[in-house]
Amino acid sequence: MTPNQVIVTNGGSEALQMAFTVCLNPGDEIIIPEPYYTNYNTFAKLCDAKIVTIPSDIKTGFALPPIEEFEKVITPYTRAIMICNPNNPTGYLYTHEELLKVAGLVKKYDLYLFADEVYREFCYDGHKHFSVMQLEGLERNVILFDSVSKRYSACGARVGCMVTRNSEVYAIAMRLAQARLSPPSFGQFFAEAAVDTPQDYFDAVQAEYVARRNVVVEGVNKIPGCFCPMPKGAFYTVIDLPIDDSDKFCQWLLTDFSYNGATVMLAPATGFYVDPEQGRHQARITYCICIEDLKKAMKCLEEALKVYPGRTR
Amino acid sequence: MTPNQVIVTNGGSEALQMAFTVCLNPGDEIIIPEPYYTNYNTFAKLCDAKIVTIPSDIKTGFALPPIEEFEKVITPYTRAIMICNPNNPTGYLYTHEELLKVAGLVKKYDLYLFADEVYREFCYDGHKHFSVMQLEGLERNVILFDSVSKRYSACGARVGCMVTRNSEVYAIAMRLAQARLSPPSFGQFFAEAAVDTPQDYFDAVQAEYVARRNVVVEGVNKIPGCFCPMPKGAFYTVIDLPIDDSDKFCQWLLTDFSYNGATVMLAPATGFYVDPEQGRHQARITYCICIEDLKKAMKCLEEALKVYPGRTR
Repeated sequence: MTPNQVIVTNGGSEALQMAFTVCLNPGDEIIIPEPYYTNYNTFAKLCDAKIVTIPSDIKTGFALPPIEEFEKVITPYTRAIMICNPNNPTGYLYTHEELLKVAGLVKKYDLYLFADEVYREFCYDGHKHFSVMQLEGLERNVILFDSVSKRYSACGARVGCMVTRNSEVYAIAMRLAQARLSPPSFGQFFAEAAVDTPQDYFDAVQAEYVARRNVVVEGVNKIPGCFCPMPKGAFYTVIDLPIDDSDKFCQWLLTDFSYNGATVMLAPATGFYVDPEQGRHQARITYCICIEDLKKAMKCLEEALKVYPGRTR
Repeated sequence: MTPNQVIVTNGGSEALQMAFTVCLNPGDEIIIPEPYYTNYNTFAKLCDAKIVTIPSDIKTGFALPPIEEFEKVITPYTRAIMICNPNNPTGYLYTHEELLKVAGLVKKYDLYLFADEVYREFCYDGHKHFSVMQLEGLERNVILFDSVSKRYSACGARVGCMVTRNSEVYAIAMRLAQARLSPPSFGQFFAEAAVDTPQDYFDAVQAEYVARRNVVVEGVNKIPGCFCPMPKGAFYTVIDLPIDDSDKFCQWLLTDFSYNGATVMLAPATGFYVDPEQGRHQARITYCICIEDLKKAMKCLEEALKVYPGRTR
C-alpha cells in the first residue's frame, strides 16, 4: 500500500461511514452474512441503502453460507458485499477458500467488497488471517476498514482508517475527510508510537484470549440446553440458549437475578439480525474480561438458567 | 443547559454534520449570509440540502444584511437559517439587535436556527458576545455548535459539541452518536482539564489578538487600492484587493513571489461564496501568527501588489 491509498479516520466507524457515503446511492443494496455488527445499519441508513442478509448457521460456527445463496439475492441494485473478518459478533474467521468464493462473485458482478478487519490480530489455534487486500484483480473493488482500537486495546483513541486502491473512491472520500478537518491528534500520536509494539505483546495477548475463549466455550457447552461454537478469532461468540426471548433474558439478568452478589451481562443477538426473531434464542458473549471473572460469569449463567422463568427446554 | 441537551462530538465539524443530517431532508434549503465557512457546503451536500445565500457587504464590515432580504428567499423548502458568530471568514460579530431580527424570522416561519459560535471567546473592543442560546421562545429551533479548538488553541483535540433544547433533534442525533461510538478519549481528558483555564489566560489572548488585528487592519488599509474592515471578533478578516483574480493572486504569491526570502499566504475568498465571482477580488487573512510575522506579512503583501501582473487599479 502507499500513503495515498489510506485515509486516517475517527475510528473504524468513520471509515465505514465514509465508504458507505462514497459508494452507495439511495436504494443500493449491500449483502452481508447474518448475524452482523449492528452499527452497519445506521451507516447504511444514512445513505438510504438497504442491507440484505444471508443467514449463517450456528451449527457450522457461522461459516460463510454457500456462495450460491449470495448470488440468489443479487439484483440490479446490489452494490457491495460486506465481510467482517474475524467476525463481530460470531468470532468466525473466514478461510482463504471462502474469501476466494466471495472474490469470484464480487468480480463477476463488479461489486464493492467492504471488509471490516479490525480484529485481524486476534486469530487462534494456528489459523492465519487472510486479508481481502491480498485478493488479486480486485483493486477497484476492495475497501478495507481498520482501527487501532482492538489491536492495542485502545478503543477511545478513535484512530482508524479506510484503505483502497480505487483512486476514484479515495478522491471522493478525501473530500469528506477534508470537510471534517482531521482525526484526533492525541490519538494519532498514540497510534504512531503503538506501531512499534513488539510481537511478544501480541503473542501474550493471543495466548490469553485463547485461554479465555476456552473457558467460555467449555463453560457454555456444559450448561444443559446451551450451545457455543468454537470461534477462531476476535473476542466474541454467539451462543444458543434454552430461553423464550434473549432481550427479556438479558434484561432479567440485570434487573432480577444475582448469584453471589453478581450477575452477567450478555448482548441479546436480536440486534445482530435484520429480523430480530432470528436471534431470539441467541446472545453474544464478549470475552475481554479476565479468566477468573469469566469463570464466575459462566457459573452465574448456569445458575441463572436454572431459575429463569422463560426457560424453554 | 442540562447534560441531556449536549452531545460531545468529533470537533465542531461532526456537530454540524449531525445537525444537518438530523434536520435536513433532500431538497431542503438553509439560508446563510455570505461569505460563509466553506465546509458547510460538504455537510449540506451530504444531505442533498441546498445553501441559499444573502450577500453581506464588505463596506459595512459584513454586517447582517437587511432581514427583508432573508424573508424574500424563504420558500416552502426553507428549513433553517445559519449564523456563524463571530464570523469565519469575516470576523464580524453580530449584535443582540441583529440576532433578535433573525430570531423573529425563525419564529415566524418555524425554522431551525443553526449557530456556529466556536469563536465566541474572541470578541474585541468591549463588545460582548450574545449567544443564540439566550434567545427566548426558540427552544425547539436553536441548535448550537461549539468546540474547544479555538477557545484553547487545540484544534487537533477534536472535541466539540452540539447543543439543543429540542429533545426530538437530540434523540435522533444521539442515535448517530451511538453508531459512531464516541468522540476521542484523550481529547476529552484534555477538554475537561481545559475548562479550568483561568480568565487571565483569555484576557491575555484577547489583548494579543486585538493587537494583531490592528496590525492587519492598519497594514492593509495603508496599501493603495486595498480595503480592510474592522472585525470585532474571531481572528479573520476579509479584505478587498486591487487584483484580477484572488485564486490566481494567492497562488502567484506562493509560486512566483518572494520578498526578503519570504512570502504571504492568503485564502482566496472565492471559496467562501456560492458564486466564486463574488469573492474574485477578496481574500481572507487569518491573524493567528505573531505580531512580528504579521508586520512582515503586511509589508510582503504591499510589495507583492506593486509587481503582481494582474493588478487592476
